[in-house]
Amino acid sequence: MTLAATTPRDPYASRFADEWEAVKREDPIVWGDGDGPLCRDELRSYGTEGYLPLDKLIDRQQAAELLREARRLADAADPDKMDVIIEPGGGAVRSIFRVHRTNELFRQVCKSPRVAGIARQILGGEVYIHQSRINFKPACSGKEFFWHSDFETWHVEDGMPRMRALSMSINLTENNEFNGPLMVVGGSHELYIRCVGDTPDNHFQDSLRRQEYGVPPREALELLVEAGSGIAAPKGPPGSATLFDCNTMHGSVGNLSPYPRTNLFVVFNSLENALIEPFGGKPPRPEFLGERDPVEVSQL
Amino acid sequence: MTLAATTPRDPYASRFADEWEAVKREDPIVWGDGDGPLCRDELRSYGTEGYLPLDKLIDRQQAAELLREARRLADAADPDKMDVIIEPGGGAVRSIFRVHRTNELFRQVCKSPRVAGIARQILGGEVYIHQSRINFKPACSGKEFFWHSDFETWHVEDGMPRMRALSMSINLTENNEFNGPLMVVGGSHELYIRCVGDTPDNHFQDSLRRQEYGVPPREALELLVEAGSGIAAPKGPPGSATLFDCNTMHGSVGNLSPYPRTNLFVVFNSLENALIEPFGGKPPRPEFLGERDPVEVSQL
Repeated sequence: MTLAATTPRDPYASRFADEWEAVKREDPIVWGDGDGPLCRDELRSYGTEGYLPLDKLIDRQQAAELLREARRLADAADPDKMDVIIEPGGGAVRSIFRVHRTNELFRQVCKSPRVAGIARQILGGEVYIHQSRINFKPACSGKEFFWHSDFETWHVEDGMPRMRALSMSINLTENNEFNGPLMVVGGSHELYIRCVGDTPDNHFQDSLRRQEYGVPPREALELLVEAGSGIAAPKGPPGSATLFDCNTMHGSVGNLSPYPRTNLFVVFNSLENALIEPFGGKPPRPEFLGERDPVEVSQL
Repeated sequence: MTLAATTPRDPYASRFADEWEAVKREDPIVWGDGDGPLCRDELRSYGTEGYLPLDKLIDRQQAAELLREARRLADAADPDKMDVIIEPGGGAVRSIFRVHRTNELFRQVCKSPRVAGIARQILGGEVYIHQSRINFKPACSGKEFFWHSDFETWHVEDGMPRMRALSMSINLTENNEFNGPLMVVGGSHELYIRCVGDTPDNHFQDSLRRQEYGVPPREALELLVEAGSGIAAPKGPPGSATLFDCNTMHGSVGNLSPYPRTNLFVVFNSLENALIEPFGGKPPRPEFLGERDPVEVSQL
């Protein structure tokens, strides 16, 4: 028996070597028995592609109300607060975190039967919110976000053990070809990319504005694009949404349109997959980025 | 009679005030009598929209040959040469200028009957090449280019008197939704945006990598988008192209795809519209950016 075989093995180890590597995912994608708001075809498509666009996750009127609230929060935001992120090189608010805890309207939409029910259906059982934020992508100046798997960061920097989490990007404004919509690589959730290098201390302070560690090289993206179904950028009106697996490779280009693009972003994790010590060996990131005191979503 | 009425007036003055302004274009869009390679509908669409996508400006085999040549030139490019532009923050070649003068294959395509013939048809008579370049948009790292009217820069910084020039962006690789295609604002060529501020000395050295002066504010873009037909991003295979008027507002987002996007960009100007002293009052930019010794294109 070799040493390697007796050492507890982390299937999703990353940022320890000089070369990237693609390995097969070891976890299910859909954990539940299939019962919930999504129909069988939607669930099957989510399982195969690692993402699912929904024309109407919430209704338009609710989306409009949330947009007004989001703008009010941005106008009142204190840029010195840790959970308020400012665009690089400018004063515009890029993100406000933890809105499921700090704002009544956002708390209600996160715990609503349809939104939380879909998370339970896919993740198989009780769920909590690992992270929530409003993403503002200011008109003419919203910056791009390079390709990444959220799970890679959540595993290495936050201590999320397994791939049993998902994100919902809920469009509060229309998302179209010209305002920097979410881009996903179909099928990329099936492979895990171990990224090169180390994580600098307090990496999160910069990575929220510009990701430089835990990002895949061009060759890895090419592999994912060619092994899967290619790049897609779901569009839709206010109230539409894209669900995607925690390991789905995604990113977005800048917003050059003269109109802002605003989304509510909610990450659900299984209560059985709560955070432990970060796998990268450094102290965990602050709680606004990764909840360390999970509360079942209906109890929020 | 006031002073203003007796002073020779520059209808396209820009960068002299603290406020932007939109004024009506004073020049024709299509100058010729309509005879040439484009059909009547194509010419009408170009006149109305200020741009025209062409499925096949050159054939695919020629595009493939030019792409090979472009890559050979990039591999051999000397980054210290003035007409070789490097991506900000990286070593990748962004543009190589003046290829119609320095390379036989690119010279031939620029003076070919179809390419030069379309320029003559639209601009009404003999034409020369104001500028040519290969634009490389490297995979995963090609940067965005903010909205601008080329004519604003050519008038202020190069001394182009009137709006009697056009650009052809010829796709040597496929241009698709994900590799940072050219975006245009339909109908924007009908209005001229006087930009705010002054032009720094030797502005061109930075502006080729990142445009900061002579760019419209968000409000001007909103006006153009709403007055015209909105934003469009023509896509197409190698050999397809987009023609656009010198005053059409255009830009492009970054290339996050794992494949490079390469275009040949050629600017034709009427021989009757050759450069004079720059209207901004500073010395002209170098000749690789704006030809000051025009040669009728068939004589190249």
